[in-house]
Amino acid sequence: MRILLDVMGGDLPSRELVKGGIAAGRRRGVDVVFAGDAHEIESAFSDAGVHAGGQFDLLPCTETITMDDPPVKAVREKKDSSLVLGLSALKDGTVDAFVSPGNTGAVVAGSIFIVDRIPGIPRPGILASLPTLTGEDILVIDVGANSDCTPEQLDHFALMGASYARDVLGIDEPTTGLLNIGAERGKGNRLIADTFTQLEAGPLAFAGNVEAHHLLIDRPVDVVVCDGFVGNVFLKAVEGGISAVTSLLKRTIRGRVLAMAGALLMSGSFARVRKSLSYRKRGGAPLLGVNGVVVIAHGRSDAVAIESAIDVACREVEVGLIDRLSQGMSGWGDHGS
Amino acid sequence: MRILLDVMGGDLPSRELVKGGIAAGRRRGVDVVFAGDAHEIESAFSDAGVHAGGQFDLLPCTETITMDDPPVKAVREKKDSSLVLGLSALKDGTVDAFVSPGNTGAVVAGSIFIVDRIPGIPRPGILASLPTLTGEDILVIDVGANSDCTPEQLDHFALMGASYARDVLGIDEPTTGLLNIGAERGKGNRLIADTFTQLEAGPLAFAGNVEAHHLLIDRPVDVVVCDGFVGNVFLKAVEGGISAVTSLLKRTIRGRVLAMAGALLMSGSFARVRKSLSYRKRGGAPLLGVNGVVVIAHGRSDAVAIESAIDVACREVEVGLIDRLSQGMSGWGDHGS
Repeated sequence: MRILLDVMGGDLPSRELVKGGIAAGRRRGVDVVFAGDAHEIESAFSDAGVHAGGQFDLLPCTETITMDDPPVKAVREKKDSSLVLGLSALKDGTVDAFVSPGNTGAVVAGSIFIVDRIPGIPRPGILASLPTLTGEDILVIDVGANSDCTPEQLDHFALMGASYARDVLGIDEPTTGLLNIGAERGKGNRLIADTFTQLEAGPLAFAGNVEAHHLLIDRPVDVVVCDGFVGNVFLKAVEGGISAVTSLLKRTIRGRVLAMAGALLMSGSFARVRKSLSYRKRGGAPLLGVNGVVVIAHGRSDAVAIESAIDVACREVEVGLIDRLSQGMSGWGDHGS
Repeated sequence: MRILLDVMGGDLPSRELVKGGIAAGRRRGVDVVFAGDAHEIESAFSDAGVHAGGQFDLLPCTETITMDDPPVKAVREKKDSSLVLGLSALKDGTVDAFVSPGNTGAVVAGSIFIVDRIPGIPRPGILASLPTLTGEDILVIDVGANSDCTPEQLDHFALMGASYARDVLGIDEPTTGLLNIGAERGKGNRLIADTFTQLEAGPLAFAGNVEAHHLLIDRPVDVVVCDGFVGNVFLKAVEGGISAVTSLLKRTIRGRVLAMAGALLMSGSFARVRKSLSYRKRGGAPLLGVNGVVVIAHGRSDAVAIESAIDVACREVEVGLIDRLSQGMSGWGDHGS
């Protein structure tokens, strides 16, 4: 198995990302190709005692797509960027998966233009896996690839999310739910009402509406379906709520001797909580619906997050998710278009 | 000043809500009329040593609109409910404000049918006030009255939110922002793109896009504008994130002696954090755009939350918000329709 890692365009220096790629490659015994500035990659290789050409190789490129670049324009114009060269390698079959912490919009646009979509799925969706209090993750799709969606697209997200839950996570008969602002049928906007009818008639185990405040507590379903605008607001709001509590707690403790002593005694517990809710350890969100394994890592990814994003990519390749998705689009019901 | 409190339809018994109403009335020196089951209200009165007819009175009714009732149907059919009778009293001018912890959809529908809207505002919006780490609240409108919105409606929400910030909270030149999934112009869905252009051309101090994870931390603007579906998902996601952290922390501590000792030492800090982020103390969300002061309290409101919801209603009446909104719709620019 050969994974391509785009080491440009993330927030951290490529040296840090190469470190994560080498660690993942060694641990999993997979090849990793690093796309980026040749000089920086070689220097990171030499730090790690790695020689280019064997298990670890490099794909040199001279251009970088930044976080601020307009996605479609960047993909069209920056032909010698790690993102475009990397996705081209995926298209050609010289690598089995593409992992990038870069500009999300550019990864989505590049994947559609260069790798193309699975037949029957006009719009790919980004799948996020979030920790919950039950100990099991909950999947949410789409969290940002599509800001305006149709019921058909949400239906595809449900099918792809359920396929991922079944084929990659081994959940027997995954349940799906619609992210809505009330549990009762008929609540919410037109998109949700129309999608509800469609999912109800479809082949999946559809559990109806689910509400945002339950997801991380009760994990009411395996897969939550929403449009990319709502999904992205949901993710960031959860992140904001968590940051607010932890910041406030830190600030409240500061300068209070007893409280600080208390915090010291509790530090093990804090570390466990941080770890359970860590998005850093879950460095990769699969882009489902394109005709190749594409995993989007967080822009702030460090070596640990990159390692975890490569893990996500490897699991998808191992189970042959793309083939299963292609079959699933016809196999799970008449949901191709 | 005379406030009507709907003591039916909330999650807690009306006795608890009457307690909050009496406390608020005594503290603020305002009259409170309680709409609900006469027997229950009289029994709560006698517990509190109150005689009906003076500062505290009752409006007896025989029907209750429950949380599960379909809003429009309930308002049309349950003519003798506390919600319908209460809103009719507001319409007639026998009370100055209506406060209810009941079915949000029914309060919105009833307000539109019975009290009607301020001319030029076809859709009212619910305004939430959230605590932030800066110590100042941030306002978000709409958090649930409208699931499908037009740019014109979002424009009205911005104007009403800004008027509330200025006229009720005394913020000199309130800034507004659009809740979006990226900071750059052009991000997001069509509704946001169109609203951006409209707000930019409008009379308000428009600061552009704001993202969900910043709101409670940095408070980037005074007023955040969004459609009611997205706003409601945002609120519930924040609530979910906060609950997840606090539950996880509690669970992690349990059974660990040192951590429990630590938590004990920190308990003052925990209490301060809980208080800062308490939604219970902020019991009321104004429904802006109807031609009378309507405040929606949380369904789970207890006496403290009801007191706070009545405070919100009193402040709106004191500054004459309805008149200011009516003038504002023409005064702040050509935003009537």
